[in-house]
Amino acid sequence: MSRYIIDLNCDMGESFGAFSIGNDEAILPFVSSVNIACGFHAGDPSVMKRTVRAAIKHGVSIGAHPGFPDLQGFGRREMVITDEEVYDLVLYQIGALSAFVKAEGGTLHHVKPHGALYNMAAVNSSLSNAIAKAVHAMEPQLILYGLAGSQLILSAKRIGLRVANEIFADRTYEPDGTLKPRHLAGAVIIDPKLAITQSIRMIAEGNADTICIHGDGKHAVEFAMSLYHNFQKEGIIIKSPK
Amino acid sequence: MSRYIIDLNCDMGESFGAFSIGNDEAILPFVSSVNIACGFHAGDPSVMKRTVRAAIKHGVSIGAHPGFPDLQGFGRREMVITDEEVYDLVLYQIGALSAFVKAEGGTLHHVKPHGALYNMAAVNSSLSNAIAKAVHAMEPQLILYGLAGSQLILSAKRIGLRVANEIFADRTYEPDGTLKPRHLAGAVIIDPKLAITQSIRMIAEGNADTICIHGDGKHAVEFAMSLYHNFQKEGIIIKSPK
Amino acid sequence: MSRYIIDLNCDMGESFGAFSIGNDEAILPFVSSVNIACGFHAGDPSVMKRTVRAAIKHGVSIGAHPGFPDLQGFGRREMVITDEEVYDLVLYQIGALSAFVKAEGGTLHHVKPHGALYNMAAVNSSLSNAIAKAVHAMEPQLILYGLAGSQLILSAKRIGLRVANEIFADRTYEPDGTLKPRHLAGAVIIDPKLAITQSIRMIAEGNADTICIHGDGKHAVEFAMSLYHNFQKEGIIIKSPK
Amino acid sequence: MSRYIIDLNCDMGESFGAFSIGNDEAILPFVSSVNIACGFHAGDPSVMKRTVRAAIKHGVSIGAHPGFPDLQGFGRREMVITDEEVYDLVLYQIGALSAFVKAEGGTLHHVKPHGALYNMAAVNSSLSNAIAKAVHAMEPQLILYGLAGSQLILSAKRIGLRVANEIFADRTYEPDGTLKPRHLAGAVIIDPKLAITQSIRMIAEGNADTICIHGDGKHAVEFAMSLYHNFQKEGIIIKSPK
Repeated sequence: MSRYIIDLNCDMGESFGAFSIGNDEAILPFVSSVNIACGFHAGDPSVMKRTVRAAIKHGVSIGAHPGFPDLQGFGRREMVITDEEVYDLVLYQIGALSAFVKAEGGTLHHVKPHGALYNMAAVNSSLSNAIAKAVHAMEPQLILYGLAGSQLILSAKRIGLRVANEIFADRTYEPDGTLKPRHLAGAVIIDPKLAITQSIRMIAEGNADTICIHGDGKHAVEFAMSLYHNFQKEGIIIKSPK
Repeated sequence: MSRYIIDLNCDMGESFGAFSIGNDEAILPFVSSVNIACGFHAGDPSVMKRTVRAAIKHGVSIGAHPGFPDLQGFGRREMVITDEEVYDLVLYQIGALSAFVKAEGGTLHHVKPHGALYNMAAVNSSLSNAIAKAVHAMEPQLILYGLAGSQLILSAKRIGLRVANEIFADRTYEPDGTLKPRHLAGAVIIDPKLAITQSIRMIAEGNADTICIHGDGKHAVEFAMSLYHNFQKEGIIIKSPK
Repeated sequence: MSRYIIDLNCDMGESFGAFSIGNDEAILPFVSSVNIACGFHAGDPSVMKRTVRAAIKHGVSIGAHPGFPDLQGFGRREMVITDEEVYDLVLYQIGALSAFVKAEGGTLHHVKPHGALYNMAAVNSSLSNAIAKAVHAMEPQLILYGLAGSQLILSAKRIGLRVANEIFADRTYEPDGTLKPRHLAGAVIIDPKLAITQSIRMIAEGNADTICIHGDGKHAVEFAMSLYHNFQKEGIIIKSPK
Repeated sequence: MSRYIIDLNCDMGESFGAFSIGNDEAILPFVSSVNIACGFHAGDPSVMKRTVRAAIKHGVSIGAHPGFPDLQGFGRREMVITDEEVYDLVLYQIGALSAFVKAEGGTLHHVKPHGALYNMAAVNSSLSNAIAKAVHAMEPQLILYGLAGSQLILSAKRIGLRVANEIFADRTYEPDGTLKPRHLAGAVIIDPKLAITQSIRMIAEGNADTICIHGDGKHAVEFAMSLYHNFQKEGIIIKSPK
């Protein structure tokens, strides 16, 4: 089964000042790419620098992870916002992160919208166009990560960006392919075996370029490690998209 | 007297959402460079884009204008902050602005710290080193604007950056060359003739590369126009530093 | 026609640090009540104190004007937020303002939600219940201002609060009684005569306890003055609800 | 030794949205009063409500814990700020918290400034006067907690407030009675026995009304418990000041 290549990505750099979130250092060995918060929904300039540095040290691909300007809501609360405002805030955040990547001697590899912005971009083509336009304006070589088969993926392709179809190892899906909202029962898969089985099936179906794993939660590191080793056992190559 | 070349710079893009400050469009014809707020003490992503666009349209040189994360205090309140935090927040803000400059087809020309950060960097060499380091890490070709003869100018030179020694047309100076603090009586020169005479004297003394004019205040546009025309009359060439 | 009594209210204290909005001092003589921003969508602690002080000096009734935590969007962008979060942020803001009212020797008279929170509360009974509950928890004597005949008015009545049905002098209405959204053409009435005629008609119909006039905009003061004098001429008594 | 009465206080409610800090529920059984963050350096409206509710449930005295508007710096970075701004931001925060205390059926008992504001108020009498004035304006019955023998204590007494002289169980002191700054080596006492011995000595000397224990850190709960039991063993009564 060595024909399968998959990217394992994880949101990182979500701490803010004295507020600490996640286990970035512990997760890094088991992922091939990371999405670094850019200061709007999480992260601050100092956290961003440290996280970029750690990502480079571990040789993983670095992505910007822009979100809504809503620290209290962690970027998970939908906002009614114009497409132009979305373009502006996405471009701003990619620019800010890219400065740290450049200063640390790395290369920005991709962009993945966060939280409510990600979910809205999956189904709203006008919003997803604005995001794709911002990413393209920053750098046409960037890869746009989005929910597999979503409007965001379509927008990215239309403007000429490369894409990574993302699936979630530990989340369940609605019949239309969107994520079951986080506040609903059964939205999160607790059993790691189930999550791994679902992941391998989706990879085999050929619809996944990257799998999102979560860095917070009690068993995050354990889970990442388990996914990593099961994939190796199955001959699946873990590698960020080129 | 045509041997004199001077840059006229103005802080711009200081509006924030529905909060409007300054007369950017009216001032733009009379300056050769602008310093655009980056969202921490003023400015938001949408204001930044519009301001970059206007600056490019008017053919003026564009600078980043990073400040303290203090919107309420407009970046004018000193904060006790580590050098590393300063490096981080300066790099963050330059990166954010540079994304808009790139997207709009321009080139970032310089960096000028704002408010309390500017004043602290004039006298604190450890802080000014951090700023110079951030500017250099972003792009060694950037010019660093700082108070004429200040620690910030010295730090910039040490790290290999080009500099622009800045004087203020409408501010008075302490005997040690620092600006008289804004809250003291006599800190701001009201009489435009006096301001113009002081400016021309300082240019003739050879210690000024750029003059800061202010965009807010009742008579800002009038004053900029008057400075501009008086300089032309005196054969002083208005041009941003190369 | 002296049987008509109407309250004229105006949003105030919307400046933030160096960012100045509105003509509070000029409008104050022509209104009977004011709604003071509480620091989330506009206003800061220092602006709040000054505005409370000015309101007391002019003898107008003071209301808290809580909004979404969105300074950049001026509280005009809808947010998807739980009822409990709404209860919490409304109570927080009323509490903050009431401290200044108490310290300055005044009495808090009413609460009026701002912007998107106001509009959402007009049609969403679960959200409007949360607001009414917060107001009641703070002080059952407070009057809740809401769009005339809206869900917010109903929620307030249900919990035992007194209400003020609000109409807008310079806004047009949808057939269902909600405000035409601000970004649509024709949403704002430009002609003051038309606005005055609409106001008087709505007062005569008996469905209005208070009229909102706006403090920003070029002709705000002029308009307030004109409304005030036309009401006096018609024998309409301008007085805040008791 | 049963003649000694001491208050054990702990900072609480320092979480913010998804960002979790502290072990409030675990510490509550071992303290007699809590200082609840008010949304500027930590805490948000929802966290404040939950913390007030928990404090009432445990029967501990509730204090407001106002800090600088600096979430990233956790209120620990000094800001150069006018006395009037300090008065305003302290009054704002006390007001906000008091709304939750009132809504939950409790009574606000005291105010304790946080972090850099606390430290600056210990040595700057003009700043400490502003804080005392704000507390008094809110409610003259409130008790002001401040560093034992500091300017804040003096200001509070001058204006007629009751005070609680505070000592720190796990911090070392400079010869002048101020706290050794947190970033210096030896500022924090690691050995709980040493901390307990220092505490008991300071109580016996009669200069302490309240002892601050910290809620974060690995061994916070353990330490609180140990202090609590050692005090009981010594016959020291743990009780908030009346």
